Amino acid sequence: MKANPYHDIARLLIRCPDRQGIVASVSNFLYNHRANITALDQHTTCLQEGAFFMRVEFKLPQLEATLPVLTDAFKETIVPKYDMEFRISHAGSLKRVALFVSKMDHALMELLWRWKRGELAMDIACVVSNHEDCKHAVESFGLQYFYIPVSNGNKVEAEREILQKLRGNVDFVILARYMQILSREFVQEYPYKIINIHHSFLPAFVGADPYTKAFERGVKLVGATAHFVTEDLDEGPIIEQDVARVNHRFSTDRLKELGRDIEKFVLARAVKWYLEDRIIVDGNKTIVFI
Amino acid sequence: MKANPYHDIARLLIRCPDRQGIVASVSNFLYNHRANITALDQHTTCLQEGAFFMRVEFKLPQLEATLPVLTDAFKETIVPKYDMEFRISHAGSLKRVALFVSKMDHALMELLWRWKRGELAMDIACVVSNHEDCKHAVESFGLQYFYIPVSNGNKVEAEREILQKLRGNVDFVILARYMQILSREFVQEYPYKIINIHHSFLPAFVGADPYTKAFERGVKLVGATAHFVTEDLDEGPIIEQDVARVNHRFSTDRLKELGRDIEKFVLARAVKWYLEDRIIVDGNKTIVFI
Amino acid sequence: MKANPYHDIARLLIRCPDRQGIVASVSNFLYNHRANITALDQHTTCLQEGAFFMRVEFKLPQLEATLPVLTDAFKETIVPKYDMEFRISHAGSLKRVALFVSKMDHALMELLWRWKRGELAMDIACVVSNHEDCKHAVESFGLQYFYIPVSNGNKVEAEREILQKLRGNVDFVILARYMQILSREFVQEYPYKIINIHHSFLPAFVGADPYTKAFERGVKLVGATAHFVTEDLDEGPIIEQDVARVNHRFSTDRLKELGRDIEKFVLARAVKWYLEDRIIVDGNKTIVFI
Amino acid sequence: MKANPYHDIARLLIRCPDRQGIVASVSNFLYNHRANITALDQHTTCLQEGAFFMRVEFKLPQLEATLPVLTDAFKETIVPKYDMEFRISHAGSLKRVALFVSKMDHALMELLWRWKRGELAMDIACVVSNHEDCKHAVESFGLQYFYIPVSNGNKVEAEREILQKLRGNVDFVILARYMQILSREFVQEYPYKIINIHHSFLPAFVGADPYTKAFERGVKLVGATAHFVTEDLDEGPIIEQDVARVNHRFSTDRLKELGRDIEKFVLARAVKWYLEDRIIVDGNKTIVFI
Repeated sequence: MKANPYHDIARLLIRCPDRQGIVASVSNFLYNHRANITALDQHTTCLQEGAFFMRVEFKLPQLEATLPVLTDAFKETIVPKYDMEFRISHAGSLKRVALFVSKMDHALMELLWRWKRGELAMDIACVVSNHEDCKHAVESFGLQYFYIPVSNGNKVEAEREILQKLRGNVDFVILARYMQILSREFVQEYPYKIINIHHSFLPAFVGADPYTKAFERGVKLVGATAHFVTEDLDEGPIIEQDVARVNHRFSTDRLKELGRDIEKFVLARAVKWYLEDRIIVDGNKTIVFI
Repeated sequence: MKANPYHDIARLLIRCPDRQGIVASVSNFLYNHRANITALDQHTTCLQEGAFFMRVEFKLPQLEATLPVLTDAFKETIVPKYDMEFRISHAGSLKRVALFVSKMDHALMELLWRWKRGELAMDIACVVSNHEDCKHAVESFGLQYFYIPVSNGNKVEAEREILQKLRGNVDFVILARYMQILSREFVQEYPYKIINIHHSFLPAFVGADPYTKAFERGVKLVGATAHFVTEDLDEGPIIEQDVARVNHRFSTDRLKELGRDIEKFVLARAVKWYLEDRIIVDGNKTIVFI
Repeated sequence: MKANPYHDIARLLIRCPDRQGIVASVSNFLYNHRANITALDQHTTCLQEGAFFMRVEFKLPQLEATLPVLTDAFKETIVPKYDMEFRISHAGSLKRVALFVSKMDHALMELLWRWKRGELAMDIACVVSNHEDCKHAVESFGLQYFYIPVSNGNKVEAEREILQKLRGNVDFVILARYMQILSREFVQEYPYKIINIHHSFLPAFVGADPYTKAFERGVKLVGATAHFVTEDLDEGPIIEQDVARVNHRFSTDRLKELGRDIEKFVLARAVKWYLEDRIIVDGNKTIVFI
Repeated sequence: MKANPYHDIARLLIRCPDRQGIVASVSNFLYNHRANITALDQHTTCLQEGAFFMRVEFKLPQLEATLPVLTDAFKETIVPKYDMEFRISHAGSLKRVALFVSKMDHALMELLWRWKRGELAMDIACVVSNHEDCKHAVESFGLQYFYIPVSNGNKVEAEREILQKLRGNVDFVILARYMQILSREFVQEYPYKIINIHHSFLPAFVGADPYTKAFERGVKLVGATAHFVTEDLDEGPIIEQDVARVNHRFSTDRLKELGRDIEKFVLARAVKWYLEDRIIVDGNKTIVFI
């Protein structure tokens, strides 16, 4: 196994009411724990009574031993002082994901190929699908493929079966063109940990068949949106969006073909940012530190 | 006065039920009238029972004398044979426009500067505004500025006054950030001859304050849309759209500032295409031959 | 096997000195042969003494039987009259390609996946490589993989071996990140039939290591260029280019990673246009009818 | 006069060898001086023996009185400890600029209109030109226009005359399509303080007539580059670049027309970043904190 380039890197995400001295406190704390800041980004939602957000990437010698110590100390000294929410993660400890797909393979394959090339630092626990179409391609990567069909009658059971596969094995979920709507119960198990790719430029064309709607409205650009899944369909915090130019010659089928390329890229970028702990949810919006 | 580069150029737009032989008939007709085709573009909405659209640009010797003859002959021989709608225009005969503006000058100034540089081949009959803000800047171009305030009570009268200024002097209208909604009666006087710039990527954020809505939804791109005005607000055929990338750092004010740039460009492109007879309305969509 | 959507479609590409009546002649000819024009695009390099280019797509009943007749008639009646070069192809008769690759798989995999999804209408005769890295992935698509190593000493022999595999089996060649420079003799066997993807925005950063050069120059965009291979390295006619935005944070490695995405897309578009007979070479430039 | 939104904002730019504790030291220093950090961005060129760069924006009560004190203290305590180069500027103290133009007005007008709309926080000391073409338009903004013609014989004198106008009145210079090459002596008076807009995507098409060269090479995108002027023509550090898509239909004139739009935007962005102290020159490259 090759050396993990992230083995001594940790990342700290914080959120708290804005006030003076936070950067100084946090950077001092890290310096005193012998951490070397390699990246720092911050954001304040407004200057008066706003919220403060920060992402710090730092190197730490003997990280595996020292990070828990640092984390406990942070919790005791800094967090209460600033009424802070925080998350510290070890970049070398890969997040485990379940990929969901239905029939169309383009978004899934894009992720698998990038993962194989080392562009996406994650462990793939399994691929879940309500169809068998992608089984062969997935298994050729040496990955587990759970075929769990969903019909009108068995949706509750199917989700229960899926959750059994996932619990304890998975940190987050990617819906790579999974065409089933997840129940409120399912979504609540993974709050802001399910990333979906919607095949339109939200909030335009919410719901089914966005390319048909785009064709009928005669838009001159089509798009795709990666967002966190919440209980409200297509209403969750947007992570990333992109568009491509079209014209009157594009049939619905050509819109779909072009759209696949946008979907692939938008989802891949959103996943990469998630893996690198660059995203903080703020209400129904996201702060993405890139 | 400098030589008009369009003096011997004409343009033919047609629309008819699709069938075999239209291109051959039309191109033969033009050849027999000594016209030299310099550009030709066509579109069929679908292969069975579709509609056929074509734009032809051609040079014609002694155009001023011969174009009326050609037009009459076209009407008699080709049009009935194919159940055709058509329009022939002399590129050198500039379209006359009225520009409408409220307070924000960016879209208007962009058009005036491009016009002055020779990028937009049109005659500007006048600028109409419900505010006085842009009066000085407009008059420095040597143009007439009609200040016609609109209040809740006088809207009908104000439109009547505007129409008096326009009738007989104007071929089309550009709403360059004119913040009044035109009445059904007004719109019907200029069917598919009023171009509006809407400050969002339609159909997202219809109506007032789209940048505030975009900020609240947390989109990662903002856009603008040039469209023909119909009786349904922001629902007319889309001519052109574009977007620009934003992030969590963009306040509503910065969205507006960035949006101004998109609005300027999108409107300028739509107007240029209109002036060059590149747009055919097809139901609630446009075919733009570029 | 599913029905070929192109079975009754043919495409005509022409090039000749510009003069009046060409469109009329060609469209009449096609009409008289019962062809139905479904797409037509043309270009004139300049109005006086220029060259004329046209692409026509048409449907023809019983195409397999009638296309040879039409082709012969075209050659006898139209071609001599206008001093024309032309090419007529049957859209349903798929072009056969050899894909060349070295170690990096991204451009190759993108083409194979699009091909498998039906986005690229071509027959893949084989994949040729000077390395074994992609062998397994290629063979999983059921394709032949010829591993033909190239060293300083054996280049002539290696090319001879490759040509033996290709002759009679291949209509064109795609260099999907093949890192060997082909000899003049090899290139001459496939004039304007070898498409290469160069990993920079030509003419910037010709030659080796463009991403390192881009990093050193501090450019704010990196790009890729698909072009026909000629005897002059990186100097052949450009088919397509694209760029992506970068900043000071991008190391050479991250430029390469981002660049892979641009390369994939640019090459895929160029290949699609080539397969659809949309490209005409004009001196050292291309006309692409899209 | 309206309230200056920047009246209590200052910006600190630093550069030093990378080592641990810089962020902590600087943020502590600012906290102890009662400054409230509102934006912070940093960059390290590489992890071992690299250079460290940082931009901090902060609010300071009674800034006019306290900023000199803070600056002196920073110079005494922080700078020597880290072998630091630094610059502290008061955001409310507007930079003074001289705009240079030749005949083409588009880049100049874009800057003047943005300035008038409040998008560019700078004081315009004067416009310098070797032609009279833009005199009227400039003076309608109430600005001084120095017409200083340049011929082969009088270049030295002309530059001397220009420098007399500038000295003491100007912090930086913008070449908004000024078509004279400045002498080494002139450039040395404003090191990394002269921003030029070059009408190509550098390093492609260095020197004169880039659009003609782009036309001849048959590129599929044209671009523009804003860069600092150094003694080597078109070789200075790049600040910003952008491109637009073109095709075989674009004559050199149309490339120029489209190019004007790119030039305008690229220059406007570069100037805005300069005014906001977002740019640090690093060798022949720039770090732009946006």
